Amino acid sequence: MIGRLNHVGIAVPSIDAAKATYRDLYGVPESAMTETRELPAQGVRFAFVNVANSQIELIEPLGAESPIRKFLERNPNGGQHHVCFEVEEIYAARDAMLAKGAAVLNEPRIGAHGTPVIFIHPKNSNGVLIELMETPKAARA
Amino acid sequence: MIGRLNHVGIAVPSIDAAKATYRDLYGVPESAMTETRELPAQGVRFAFVNVANSQIELIEPLGAESPIRKFLERNPNGGQHHVCFEVEEIYAARDAMLAKGAAVLNEPRIGAHGTPVIFIHPKNSNGVLIELMETPKAARA
Repeated sequence: MIGRLNHVGIAVPSIDAAKATYRDLYGVPESAMTETRELPAQGVRFAFVNVANSQIELIEPLGAESPIRKFLERNPNGGQHHVCFEVEEIYAARDAMLAKGAAVLNEPRIGAHGTPVIFIHPKNSNGVLIELMETPKAARA
Repeated sequence: MIGRLNHVGIAVPSIDAAKATYRDLYGVPESAMTETRELPAQGVRFAFVNVANSQIELIEPLGAESPIRKFLERNPNGGQHHVCFEVEEIYAARDAMLAKGAAVLNEPRIGAHGTPVIFIHPKNSNGVLIELMETPKAARA
């Protein structure tokens, strides 16, 4: 049911500093990183670092109510925040998760890639917050 | 310099239970999971869950001195432990990391995939423990 590992989400105090890490320490060119954008409704700024087969999503809190703030209080330097897998159809995935008793944290909403996403509570997946992201078939081939 | 995102490492109290999560909740067939094996020198049991483009590495403590035990004390249900990127040549990668002032946590040693690996301290990468894994060129194509 899950497809590709679309990205690993990493919460950071500063996207600019994190981009510099991937550029200066790990040799990822700026051209492989997206511009930093904002999702105010979700309280985040974000950017993607592209590697050959997947992406790192850098996430920074936006606004006082950002859910990322609490994470950074516990992990002041940043840390791995979630893992995102692609699914074919988000409502089918949501229904399948609910039917299996998983805690789906939100109604499908538009995520950082412009397609609908849901999050599954870490208690259902060995302490890992899982994002499921609807992905057009062409992008999954 | 870094290549593919080879895997995301997830520390879990029980690999068997975690395999069941990926099978029963996320629909990954048993045939896409490796047998659970041991690396006694590193104090871990491990197995890989294959997805279309990458892998999840499940890691369980092995022995009283396992470095995974402390992680699980802080995260009793498990959690994201490291991100592994492929590199062409481990000694070149090690030397480049040291030249840039990063804290390389070990001499290159044989990892779960049978090729040499090093780990970079989380303080150098926004709180994320990074594994660099030498990968034969054919496997990176």
